[in-house]
Amino acid sequence: MKLEVNRHANTSIAQQLEAGIRAWIKAHGAGGGRRLPSIRRLAATHHISRNAVIEAYERLVAAGLVRSRPGSGFYVADNAASFTSQPAVNNALQEVTNGLWGLFNANEHALKLGCGWLPSDWREGDDLTHAIRSVARKSRPGIFEYSTPHGSQLLRGLIQERLRPLAITADAQQIVMTGGGSHSLDLLVRMLLEPGDVVFVESPGYYNLFGLLHLQRIRVVGVPRLADGPDIERLEAMLVQHRPKLFYINSVFHNPTGSTLTPAVAHRVLQLAEQYDFQIIEDDIYADFQHTPTTRLAALDGLRRVFYLGSFSKSLSSSLRVGFIASPPPQVQPLVDIKMLTSISASRFAEQVVTTLLQNGSYRKLTERLRTKLSSQMAIALTMLKGAGWEIYTEPAGGMFVWAKPPAATSPQQLSELANRWDVMLSPGHLFFADHQATPWLRLNVAYMQDPRAKAFIDAASLKRPEGRIN
Amino acid sequence: MKLEVNRHANTSIAQQLEAGIRAWIKAHGAGGGRRLPSIRRLAATHHISRNAVIEAYERLVAAGLVRSRPGSGFYVADNAASFTSQPAVNNALQEVTNGLWGLFNANEHALKLGCGWLPSDWREGDDLTHAIRSVARKSRPGIFEYSTPHGSQLLRGLIQERLRPLAITADAQQIVMTGGGSHSLDLLVRMLLEPGDVVFVESPGYYNLFGLLHLQRIRVVGVPRLADGPDIERLEAMLVQHRPKLFYINSVFHNPTGSTLTPAVAHRVLQLAEQYDFQIIEDDIYADFQHTPTTRLAALDGLRRVFYLGSFSKSLSSSLRVGFIASPPPQVQPLVDIKMLTSISASRFAEQVVTTLLQNGSYRKLTERLRTKLSSQMAIALTMLKGAGWEIYTEPAGGMFVWAKPPAATSPQQLSELANRWDVMLSPGHLFFADHQATPWLRLNVAYMQDPRAKAFIDAASLKRPEGRIN
Repeated sequence: MKLEVNRHANTSIAQQLEAGIRAWIKAHGAGGGRRLPSIRRLAATHHISRNAVIEAYERLVAAGLVRSRPGSGFYVADNAASFTSQPAVNNALQEVTNGLWGLFNANEHALKLGCGWLPSDWREGDDLTHAIRSVARKSRPGIFEYSTPHGSQLLRGLIQERLRPLAITADAQQIVMTGGGSHSLDLLVRMLLEPGDVVFVESPGYYNLFGLLHLQRIRVVGVPRLADGPDIERLEAMLVQHRPKLFYINSVFHNPTGSTLTPAVAHRVLQLAEQYDFQIIEDDIYADFQHTPTTRLAALDGLRRVFYLGSFSKSLSSSLRVGFIASPPPQVQPLVDIKMLTSISASRFAEQVVTTLLQNGSYRKLTERLRTKLSSQMAIALTMLKGAGWEIYTEPAGGMFVWAKPPAATSPQQLSELANRWDVMLSPGHLFFADHQATPWLRLNVAYMQDPRAKAFIDAASLKRPEGRIN
Repeated sequence: MKLEVNRHANTSIAQQLEAGIRAWIKAHGAGGGRRLPSIRRLAATHHISRNAVIEAYERLVAAGLVRSRPGSGFYVADNAASFTSQPAVNNALQEVTNGLWGLFNANEHALKLGCGWLPSDWREGDDLTHAIRSVARKSRPGIFEYSTPHGSQLLRGLIQERLRPLAITADAQQIVMTGGGSHSLDLLVRMLLEPGDVVFVESPGYYNLFGLLHLQRIRVVGVPRLADGPDIERLEAMLVQHRPKLFYINSVFHNPTGSTLTPAVAHRVLQLAEQYDFQIIEDDIYADFQHTPTTRLAALDGLRRVFYLGSFSKSLSSSLRVGFIASPPPQVQPLVDIKMLTSISASRFAEQVVTTLLQNGSYRKLTERLRTKLSSQMAIALTMLKGAGWEIYTEPAGGMFVWAKPPAATSPQQLSELANRWDVMLSPGHLFFADHQATPWLRLNVAYMQDPRAKAFIDAASLKRPEGRIN
């Protein structure tokens, strides 16, 4: 058995081996019983570590294709045939999710230059640890009980206060706590949409949402995202052609371009929403990275057509899973109902920890420091990229993301090989486009650009002739 | 304005007022501008607290039907007409969820005799607090980072070990961490089912599931639950008529009857699953309340057709939101994909806290003590119920639930009035039937039966002629 192994592919060696053996079984031995090469032999033939082979075999055993006989080796399982072709749902999902979770599975030493969260060493542990210990010490309901269906009343009141400086007047009764931004999106999609409905998204935009919409059989149409928000001219033209029920917009420090909605575009979007009768999800999960508030759709609209999404995952902790929806009043109860039916409340503990940090002022101070740090890191990143000749889509006023393109005609494949060489993990650019078009643009997270590997990768990708593949 | 207020209804006074004023606005003043009675006047006219009136007005203001003019009072909002009739999705959901979340919103002094979780004062805080503080102190990733897509590898290995005594051989790779039992169900329903599919449920059975299936437009068919598991004769007859894709079974300490699946019934169910080609969800979230393991479907089947669900919400903490699915191998990745698309991983913090308690042995000791306590409380409860002449559906061998019926011909309405008199909260019996048939049967949680109000309610409901309505 000779398998193809590419040390610089996006998938791990073990995954490649697994796929190779799976294909081999399908072609040669799906009848079962056939003996497979030993760990030692596969490792030697392919010049790879034995651990990679062990991992591949473990996956195949778990998947039911291979069985292991202790002391004897690995054999094709008797019923392997039924597993080599996966069910339809898998294939559909695979198309949506292929390669999406690499960054979540990355080893701790890889530089997650393409990821959507802050590095652990940027996070400030003391206040959070203190709040966690305080809730654990003081609140029996906090550590034991389900939260209420809407989520903590106290926390919702504090969020109401936090929305005031953004000129969003939401009553606490309009705020529903969720398990983070993606959970909020899922609840809204389930409440507002039917299979076959059309949803406008920004393109480039938040790729996880595209997958979610495909899962729900929603038709996804991408509206180009410019430096000041969605492309209004294109939006108008597209509205003549399509009748979306919903438009999803990332207003501030847009993922992936880092751009921020201007008041004029916000106003125009809302006019069009009125005229063509669609609702809007304003995803504002990067709000707390912003120094001086800019115009929010939810502020102009008064939460009539706009559902406003916030989260503490980006600023405070991704582990706690706390986000919220500020909703038009008639949709509050349906959102709560769907939330309860599908997950029975969120974590009371996590809600109380966030409440503690909002109440004692730590959260305010912590986000102030984060903003300052991000601003200075953004400046450094832009200088570095410009110095290396990269094109910058728009210069973000803050946040984590810059959307940039290397100067040389580098293929996505070449970029990924270069990244692998420096143990840098990217989010492939095509994922951010609703139609998954190939692109040389990359989302870079400036919080990771202090690491010398970032500069090495950026500089290498700037060479006119990047080195060829190593295979 | 004279509204009907029933002090002994299932809904709060404030909710009744809100509904009354809503109806009044719809009938009289939806044009807007009309002044509504003052808080003082409404409270005096109806002999209710001003707080109840304030709450009702707050809800109506939040809902956009009423506006408040400081210093002047409450007025019908100008656009009230558009809010008095709620959108269709609300109505459909309301049918499913009406009155479901009362127990989650109950005030802390009410006796939650009908609820599905242990009282706070049964929970043991020290070990959990210790584990929380330890994770907070030791693990920066634990407090900050997203978990991995499958969930903690270490925790999944520990769960694999815990399944061994149940004779369930699941590889850690087959285990997917979730945000609790309901979240597990939601992921499975989304992966396995299409709108219009038929699902068999147990009747009586877990009502939240019925709502979830209706939300997903699945056709729900109830199979009677007997003392030894689903009624096999009826199941066979129903299989001739329907072609379910899935059968949901609560194997141990069934909710609500407290009964446990016997090996013979388990075997027969699996035979029928083979013959009629359906999959099975074995919901075993009460597993850790069981002293001596009994037969699991997942053990007989080897996780080929059976998805096995476990949770730490019932035994350890409902606040942390940690559960898992042990899945047939081909469905593991699709489950992970749907989980990530809809919520981006579970809480790493919560996973690490559970890991700590499993590793240091506290969880084992804590559940041993819980089992002993539940056993003795079950014996007391059965004696109390039998003493009062209640009929018991089947005597549970453990767990929290007993399914019982008062001896007198008491209507559900009368039972609810009696419960209200002693500040006892019930789960209405009809919710547990797939067709919501009226029933005098009630699910009682034995862990709450130490409280004298439980005995008072049980005795009062045993009187041949319960006192008439108080209205």
